[in-house]
Amino acid sequence: MREVGIGIAGFGTVGGGVLSILQRHAGDIEARLGARIVVRRIALRDPEKERPVGVDRGLVTTRLEDLAADPGIAVVVELIGGVDQAFDLVRGALERGKHVVTANKALLATRGEEIFRLAREKGVDVYYEGAVCGGVPVIRTLREALASDRITALHGIVNGTTNFILTAMAEKGEPIEQALAEAQRLGYAEADPTLDVSGGDAAQKLCVLAQLAFGARLRPRDVLTEGIMGLSPEDFRWGREFGYALKLLAVARRCGPASGGAQDQLEARVHPAFIPAGSLLAGVRGAMNAVVIDSEALGPSMLYGQGAGAMPTGSAVVSDIIDLTRNILSGSPGRVPLPPAEPRVTLRPHDEVRCGYYLRFSVKDEPGVLARIASRLAQGRISIAAVQQHEQNDQGKPVPLVIVTHEAREADLHGAIADIDGLPATVAPTRLIRIESV
Amino acid sequence: MREVGIGIAGFGTVGGGVLSILQRHAGDIEARLGARIVVRRIALRDPEKERPVGVDRGLVTTRLEDLAADPGIAVVVELIGGVDQAFDLVRGALERGKHVVTANKALLATRGEEIFRLAREKGVDVYYEGAVCGGVPVIRTLREALASDRITALHGIVNGTTNFILTAMAEKGEPIEQALAEAQRLGYAEADPTLDVSGGDAAQKLCVLAQLAFGARLRPRDVLTEGIMGLSPEDFRWGREFGYALKLLAVARRCGPASGGAQDQLEARVHPAFIPAGSLLAGVRGAMNAVVIDSEALGPSMLYGQGAGAMPTGSAVVSDIIDLTRNILSGSPGRVPLPPAEPRVTLRPHDEVRCGYYLRFSVKDEPGVLARIASRLAQGRISIAAVQQHEQNDQGKPVPLVIVTHEAREADLHGAIADIDGLPATVAPTRLIRIESV
Repeated sequence: MREVGIGIAGFGTVGGGVLSILQRHAGDIEARLGARIVVRRIALRDPEKERPVGVDRGLVTTRLEDLAADPGIAVVVELIGGVDQAFDLVRGALERGKHVVTANKALLATRGEEIFRLAREKGVDVYYEGAVCGGVPVIRTLREALASDRITALHGIVNGTTNFILTAMAEKGEPIEQALAEAQRLGYAEADPTLDVSGGDAAQKLCVLAQLAFGARLRPRDVLTEGIMGLSPEDFRWGREFGYALKLLAVARRCGPASGGAQDQLEARVHPAFIPAGSLLAGVRGAMNAVVIDSEALGPSMLYGQGAGAMPTGSAVVSDIIDLTRNILSGSPGRVPLPPAEPRVTLRPHDEVRCGYYLRFSVKDEPGVLARIASRLAQGRISIAAVQQHEQNDQGKPVPLVIVTHEAREADLHGAIADIDGLPATVAPTRLIRIESV
Repeated sequence: MREVGIGIAGFGTVGGGVLSILQRHAGDIEARLGARIVVRRIALRDPEKERPVGVDRGLVTTRLEDLAADPGIAVVVELIGGVDQAFDLVRGALERGKHVVTANKALLATRGEEIFRLAREKGVDVYYEGAVCGGVPVIRTLREALASDRITALHGIVNGTTNFILTAMAEKGEPIEQALAEAQRLGYAEADPTLDVSGGDAAQKLCVLAQLAFGARLRPRDVLTEGIMGLSPEDFRWGREFGYALKLLAVARRCGPASGGAQDQLEARVHPAFIPAGSLLAGVRGAMNAVVIDSEALGPSMLYGQGAGAMPTGSAVVSDIIDLTRNILSGSPGRVPLPPAEPRVTLRPHDEVRCGYYLRFSVKDEPGVLARIASRLAQGRISIAAVQQHEQNDQGKPVPLVIVTHEAREADLHGAIADIDGLPATVAPTRLIRIESV
């Protein structure tokens, strides 16, 4: 039986999942491939550490460069995380004509361009299904299933940690600190949760998705990014009154070219968003992930599943290894092209983003306040869809006033809010949450 | 630029979609493939008929066999529907070493075995993403993304017509005749809706899915099939009280081997089912399709989208054409193996199916009835989870009595119902609806 040798770098959660799937399903995989996938080398930092999955000690090395140097290895699987070391490893592998599988979104979001360029030069493949939404086959679907179609928008719940926290807030009315602490206790959030709760992780994933779906070339810093830490149970309660659920969404939307421009513009943003409570995305609970893709021929479609964890992400990585093995066995590397070398869309400036907005004003309960706010919004060409103000019992306390707008321009909104926040009747900064009709 | 010639047979709704996508996205597709897909022949029955998409008259033939005979055609696209003629066309193409794309579930469900055997002999590919759930990439996901995983269950809403009807019944309280008439008026149901409302169409699709997911070899007649025409608005109302939505589900579930058996058994069934009202599948409305896949590594995942129509199904067919073109250009046909030649599971006899049941009895309002029913169920080892009986105002009218059971064996249920339906207090046959916890 033919053999394809692989080398695995990194042996944390996902590495353990990969090895365990390769071992457990070896028979099935061989039957499907007509060949054997053989792990030739495993690079890990601490060879003495106890592992949940048995490892042949003879395969272990602590030097990453041993993988690229091994002539018996055709595919290098990068699971060490981080950017610099991972980049060196991947570059070394590509330079020696090896194919690469990686589950490293940070690496692809920041240095994907160089990696793909080198892979194109060397005629080898880079697969990365595990980098976004774990085992949900969103990369494969964008790369292959939708190859005949033209994608117009992506809306994703791509960070399980924040979705877990927001689900707890929505269902139990918890404040965010409590929901975050619970997520940490259960292992859904890290001790330092910054990357997740800031939206940074979702922005990295959006960069990877937007490159495939739109031919965009984005860095995480290009994405309009707002985290979840400012959300309060009050926003969930108001949202419910308006028929909305509240989710952290990653959004990429194709817009026509700017005036005088040749390429389509792309909105790229990660932020809390109100979405219709009856929508499928609103039903994505806990740590689950989902991506809604809108495309011209297919219309709306959705992919849903576990976005993280040893086995889900491990299964995505192993499917990539199997796919590459098929390419190697049939002598067809480069069968599916890498993302385009030249960008096909330009970033729409964040000021030009257009959507509906929920605005929660904290104002003194005195005559004329609503009129002043409404007139300032009108001046900014912001049209009001609904107003709600609950009766106040505590005399003298500020009243919450909520306004939902029709689609408006981000810059106009921010201008109006700056002015309104400067009014004497305003006692706390206005809370703004975008509304998506996904 | 290299060219790959294709021939299209059949020019109805889907054929028009395919040609329109190929024309509209020609530039994008060429850029991605580095090659041109050229339609060399179009076989259609009536060349005089007006078509919504322009066709070069020089390409048209009325003889199906012209496609297989044309040496410039590498891929034959079968879109004529039906079984016998389609089979002859596909066989002719395979025998001459041509690859085949088909969107014909009836053909695959009834003669897939012969088709795949011939394709294996000839070393060519048969792709059929359009055959199940239109543009939803479920075939591709089962064939490739889950290649590293072991699937344990499939639950699908795979027939848009019946989901449209059931959604109207659930949301507007309509009787089924009215919901069906509305579906016909809007073009969601055919003039003769039998294949859809009987569950027959869903059973064909389940056969295609179960072959890929489990290596099953099923014919539609092997599938436990129950249609929707017996459902009444009353069942929806009761379901809501118990927290259920009502959907026509296609279910395939892996069970352990029967005692003394070597292979796993597979439950295969299509029937109305109550599912938790808060589940994602319950949120699949109108004519949309969705498939929930449970697998060992990935856990639950779901694919959702438009299951029919010119453009969604057309886009699936074109993605298959692109995939085959990639295989041809890279000299790697047979890259992904066809479904296994030998079945890997055996059908679990329908009598042995196990699930929860909703039973709606129509009985006279007299003392001791519930006791008699409960005792007959107990005798059949059927354990009761909940009982509901609404107060009756019309004296003398039969009262509905609803019992929800824990998981029980299908044969035990049917035995108990036969006896209960024979009781003097029973005035109409008991209505049984299965419950799935998907």
